[in-house]
Amino acid sequence: MERQILTGAVLATPDTPDTPDGVVALEGGRIRWAGPRAQMPGDLAGWPARDLGGRLVTPAPIDCHTHVVFGGTRAREFEMRLQGATYAEIARAGGGILSTVTATRAATEDTLLAQALPRVDALIAEGVTTLEVKSGYGLEADTELRMLRVARAIGRARPVRVRTTYLGAHAVPPGMDADAYLDDICIPTLRAAHAQGLVDAVDGFCEGIAFDTAQIARLFDAARGLGLPVRLHAEQLSHMGGTALAARYGALSADHVEYATDADARALAAAGTVAVLLPGAFYTLRETQAPPVAALRAHGVAMALATDCNPGSSPMTSILLAMNMGCTLFGLTPAEALAGVTVHAARALGLDDCGRIAAGLRADLAVWDVETPAELAWRIGFNPLHARYFGGIAC
Amino acid sequence: MERQILTGAVLATPDTPDTPDGVVALEGGRIRWAGPRAQMPGDLAGWPARDLGGRLVTPAPIDCHTHVVFGGTRAREFEMRLQGATYAEIARAGGGILSTVTATRAATEDTLLAQALPRVDALIAEGVTTLEVKSGYGLEADTELRMLRVARAIGRARPVRVRTTYLGAHAVPPGMDADAYLDDICIPTLRAAHAQGLVDAVDGFCEGIAFDTAQIARLFDAARGLGLPVRLHAEQLSHMGGTALAARYGALSADHVEYATDADARALAAAGTVAVLLPGAFYTLRETQAPPVAALRAHGVAMALATDCNPGSSPMTSILLAMNMGCTLFGLTPAEALAGVTVHAARALGLDDCGRIAAGLRADLAVWDVETPAELAWRIGFNPLHARYFGGIAC
Ligand SMILES: [Zn+2]
Ligand SMILES: [Zn+2]
Repeated sequence: MERQILTGAVLATPDTPDTPDGVVALEGGRIRWAGPRAQMPGDLAGWPARDLGGRLVTPAPIDCHTHVVFGGTRAREFEMRLQGATYAEIARAGGGILSTVTATRAATEDTLLAQALPRVDALIAEGVTTLEVKSGYGLEADTELRMLRVARAIGRARPVRVRTTYLGAHAVPPGMDADAYLDDICIPTLRAAHAQGLVDAVDGFCEGIAFDTAQIARLFDAARGLGLPVRLHAEQLSHMGGTALAARYGALSADHVEYATDADARALAAAGTVAVLLPGAFYTLRETQAPPVAALRAHGVAMALATDCNPGSSPMTSILLAMNMGCTLFGLTPAEALAGVTVHAARALGLDDCGRIAAGLRADLAVWDVETPAELAWRIGFNPLHARYFGGIAC
Repeated sequence: MERQILTGAVLATPDTPDTPDGVVALEGGRIRWAGPRAQMPGDLAGWPARDLGGRLVTPAPIDCHTHVVFGGTRAREFEMRLQGATYAEIARAGGGILSTVTATRAATEDTLLAQALPRVDALIAEGVTTLEVKSGYGLEADTELRMLRVARAIGRARPVRVRTTYLGAHAVPPGMDADAYLDDICIPTLRAAHAQGLVDAVDGFCEGIAFDTAQIARLFDAARGLGLPVRLHAEQLSHMGGTALAARYGALSADHVEYATDADARALAAAGTVAVLLPGAFYTLRETQAPPVAALRAHGVAMALATDCNPGSSPMTSILLAMNMGCTLFGLTPAEALAGVTVHAARALGLDDCGRIAAGLRADLAVWDVETPAELAWRIGFNPLHARYFGGIAC
């Protein structure tokens, strides 16, 4: 259907107050007009209409931080930990991120895609239309490239837009020196992946157990040389200076940021860098240091929320749960949670054509069987999605 | 189909080690036989077979503690709290349990049923075949009876077995004396509900903000006089002695039990009373005192897990999330989590015909797209259910 108006909607755009008795006009996959019915332009009156019966319409959720492509599971490690095994015992049993690296290296492109799709389908079932997917479980060229190809393949296999992020700097391969890995493998692989059109952004893990700021800076310089935007896993487990570095490079986002300071928040605001909060990892790791939400708010930093879907620290495939956890664990308001998975998530991906309900943007919309946006964040483990529009197509 | 064998199953019974290449034979809605294929009795060989392709089969989950029938939502209160409102401000705005009482009193039987069914459907979608439903948002005869009728109606409207629990002693109605409410309304309403066949068990809320142990003892005496089993919301927010009281009355379960002591655990074990752990409420209320799992384990108390689905402290409709939270927040092992929603949940409801995979029991089974039971608890917000059998019927 090329042209359609959705009527009888409560519109959460979400950056303005909700519009009751709202209308959204869709044309050619884009939003032609949105607003209160009383102000609807006359020429739309004759378009085919679908009455939404007072349901809530929001921009479709965007999951802006996932590691949804990976081999194997980490359920055994989860079980061992709860049975009282120490980290050393888990490592000896082959656990930890390197177990995922091993399983991912061993998996074919078809296998990785087949295993990722049910996870993607769970996100789509909650209305997600745009999905970021990172590499980072290869730590060598072949597998990093394969992961990125699988990420692109997700976007062909399902009605969802995929943005790829190269995360070769996720961990240091066992037995290698971090600098040697970065210079001899990670950055050359970035160039190869970029040459094949597989990279939309570049990310790293700035942490004591991974890469320091000087190393990340080298990676970011390489990205800059290729004209690619950067993001960073920063300040998750300790304060390493990654947030300030990300701001200095004008990064799209700094992610996790539990240990970020007031000065970091000011730097993010000045740089226009989004803080991507990942409560699923905070929850799973039983962290106690929450991100500095008050400081981020005070300085006007845009806060996004994402699932961080990954097999180790956040095996989560529900964007609605990320919203609930953002509220319950980090104290976001439901309105902030909704903005976090829509307008701010789009910005964390460098996208300006989605995440809001406004004329000219993509018609990526979610229709919910709820009365207020707060209900989306309030519930736990319930999916009230009524319909999803992806580029104007209900699917 | 009257007779059927399910083959190619990994069986988690769950109280014995997993059986690979297992078979379950179903006949007349019951389990006729279950075990390794190599030991299958010869007379089953000719039965119609469904090959499960190596999938995991568990007893169907049982949600043994819910308040799934209620009027209204509490999303506005959730939002106000996150916007910084105080409890007094929320109370002035009509929030808290009394807002649910008001909304429930105002709702018709049809409305309450219509609003409960999507929540029940979410549980059924995760394989739940038995569901406990409490009254307790009426606090006067008409509404308490109406809630129990709605609970029974759920069992007619959906392929799920409902066990009703009378929870008139959930809160003290505003402006009333607790003793007067208990003696003049709560206990007489119990008798009326029992006379109408609406009550399978009796429950109360033993807490400073509700009823003390002397009052609960009067309620339990009345239940005993009617031949009804009892359970108790005990030791959730403080130590009131409810757990010991429940044990003294041979209660089916003591629920929440965050503040229970080692002596309480010993008393539960001696009485054969199940401890029902409710991590959804612990999570939502941001509690820090976890139930004494080590003591419960040491004394051999059966631990169940449930959603506690209710609009205030646990708006959760996912039994799989209850399992994940039981592990992540309370330190249960995945095996304990599975037992907690199957064999121990059945016991908390006084049922001995479900919750395990064994000859003679109801054929209430869940078939999962996972390889090990640990995967059920490991994931967050993902539903790997492949098929559900309710009394032998796939539905
Ligand atoms: Zn991540
Ligand atoms: Zn309860």
